[in-house]
Amino acid sequence: MAYYVGIDLGGTNIKAGVVDSDGNLLNKLSIKTHAERDEKEIIHDMGKLAVDVIKDLGKEISDIEAIGIGSPGTPDNEEGLLVYSANLPFNNSPMRKLIRDVVDLPVYIDNDANCAAMAEAVAGAAKGTKDSVTITLGTGVGAGVIINGRIYSGFNQAGSEFGHTVLVSGGLQCKCGRRGCFEQYASASALARMTKEAAEKNPDSILKDLIAKEGGSNAKIAFDAMREGDKTAAELIESYTDYLADGLANVINTFMPEVLVVGGGVCNEGDPLLIPMREKTMSRPYFGPGVKKTEIKLAEMGNDAGIVGAAMMGKACMDDGKNGR
Amino acid sequence: MAYYVGIDLGGTNIKAGVVDSDGNLLNKLSIKTHAERDEKEIIHDMGKLAVDVIKDLGKEISDIEAIGIGSPGTPDNEEGLLVYSANLPFNNSPMRKLIRDVVDLPVYIDNDANCAAMAEAVAGAAKGTKDSVTITLGTGVGAGVIINGRIYSGFNQAGSEFGHTVLVSGGLQCKCGRRGCFEQYASASALARMTKEAAEKNPDSILKDLIAKEGGSNAKIAFDAMREGDKTAAELIESYTDYLADGLANVINTFMPEVLVVGGGVCNEGDPLLIPMREKTMSRPYFGPGVKKTEIKLAEMGNDAGIVGAAMMGKACMDDGKNGR
Repeated sequence: MAYYVGIDLGGTNIKAGVVDSDGNLLNKLSIKTHAERDEKEIIHDMGKLAVDVIKDLGKEISDIEAIGIGSPGTPDNEEGLLVYSANLPFNNSPMRKLIRDVVDLPVYIDNDANCAAMAEAVAGAAKGTKDSVTITLGTGVGAGVIINGRIYSGFNQAGSEFGHTVLVSGGLQCKCGRRGCFEQYASASALARMTKEAAEKNPDSILKDLIAKEGGSNAKIAFDAMREGDKTAAELIESYTDYLADGLANVINTFMPEVLVVGGGVCNEGDPLLIPMREKTMSRPYFGPGVKKTEIKLAEMGNDAGIVGAAMMGKACMDDGKNGR
Repeated sequence: MAYYVGIDLGGTNIKAGVVDSDGNLLNKLSIKTHAERDEKEIIHDMGKLAVDVIKDLGKEISDIEAIGIGSPGTPDNEEGLLVYSANLPFNNSPMRKLIRDVVDLPVYIDNDANCAAMAEAVAGAAKGTKDSVTITLGTGVGAGVIINGRIYSGFNQAGSEFGHTVLVSGGLQCKCGRRGCFEQYASASALARMTKEAAEKNPDSILKDLIAKEGGSNAKIAFDAMREGDKTAAELIESYTDYLADGLANVINTFMPEVLVVGGGVCNEGDPLLIPMREKTMSRPYFGPGVKKTEIKLAEMGNDAGIVGAAMMGKACMDDGKNGR
């Protein structure tokens, strides 16, 4: 069995773990990112964390094949750089070189949403498939595409930004600059916004009380209200799942993945979300008679997706003979 | 130099040609499809046409490596079937077997829009790139995706249906069953429809006269009227190119191809289409600072794209060691 380190770089925490060839996470450690610091300090800490997590498992550096890093933003895995990240102080940062100053292993870098998709493909909901897409409904809509067992993100590693495809031409302003992006209608944040709007428009609904009780809107309130029999909430979920299904059906018509994985906290709502999401989504793509259909599954890797996916991305790069030094 | 036969199966004509390894079309022949016939007769004629085009060039069957077929609909290249086609009488048709009854060569099958993209990638506007997407604005919006030099169309070969991704949620009814599909707003047919609608709403515009003169609306009229200084026509082109750019920017955000190839008769309009299409499209995707940008180019392969692409798809399958027998 071969071993890989996966590092999940986030705006708040840096998490690292040792993962075996099958995608089993053997241990993990976490430190604060302190994103206000200089990039060099952050990357130095990532390297030290990799060493710590290897030692924590009782292994040696020489027991490890490679380090995979999942980061927000756009990487350049060929040159070993993090080209750009919206929320972290990276600007053509020589991440590979700076990590290798701390620990002498091959280092590979990819986007965090892509790594989450890799984790689902190797060890999660899309295990055993060659082509899958993972969509995560969170603050935004994250997307990662796996083709033939490898991450696909375009010639510049900036692709598979499905959250920023327009679903409602001329619609709501998105922070990316476009109008009507999928994530403005289908993210957990979008549902929280829609809940607030519906509460204001429908004073008879219990949405307003629930928002007050929770100290603000969130993506759970509409489901809670619907379970209490609130009509406005039921209409809201109907509308939200319509947008969501339109976007997911777009993913299917575009990629025809064997499995479309959907994740994010809102999926914890269970059947009230999942049943309409599945039914509406599957009624929309065009499968001709006799054509095999995509299967929609819930994400299985949870909070460890970033670490496991980063490690398995590193493994894939090693297997493909990519230069990580 | 190795040689391949490409067959471009259409609803009206079946075209075949011999193509060399570099994508040069050496000769071609064409016969009528007579799509009302039994599938077996059509496929038999395709086999005979392959033999004829080889002999027409003065070559022997043994000089040819493989036959590639580009067909409308959804193929199953592993099993050698045409699973389904909307406008042709195919239903799990054993195309490989029936062709090989006529001519004993490896036979590979893919979708026609995918083959057009392959032609652009090997010998046309995207030559020299690994990742490209070709969008064709015609009766519908065709799309073909090339990843790492190979056609990508999903686990069931039914993907890259970008024309049937929703751009205007709840919008115009599409024949695929969905509402608001990209092709309802950006195809040549869509522009012809918009032109007719604009003429009816704006009796002062010259659009009405031009439609009468042409005996019906088409995608050229709005450009002709705009060149004459017609304000309604100028607004129409503004709106059409907005929708078009939204869809093309979706393609870029999704695939980040090195080159996005755009083809179809409407591209012959030149700058009045191309300048706004390019400027609007490139202003919309999110490229972070320092991230390489997609280049938008016009299709170069014209009417031969189907033949050349089918042949080069056949070559790619041979190179990958896929079974064609």
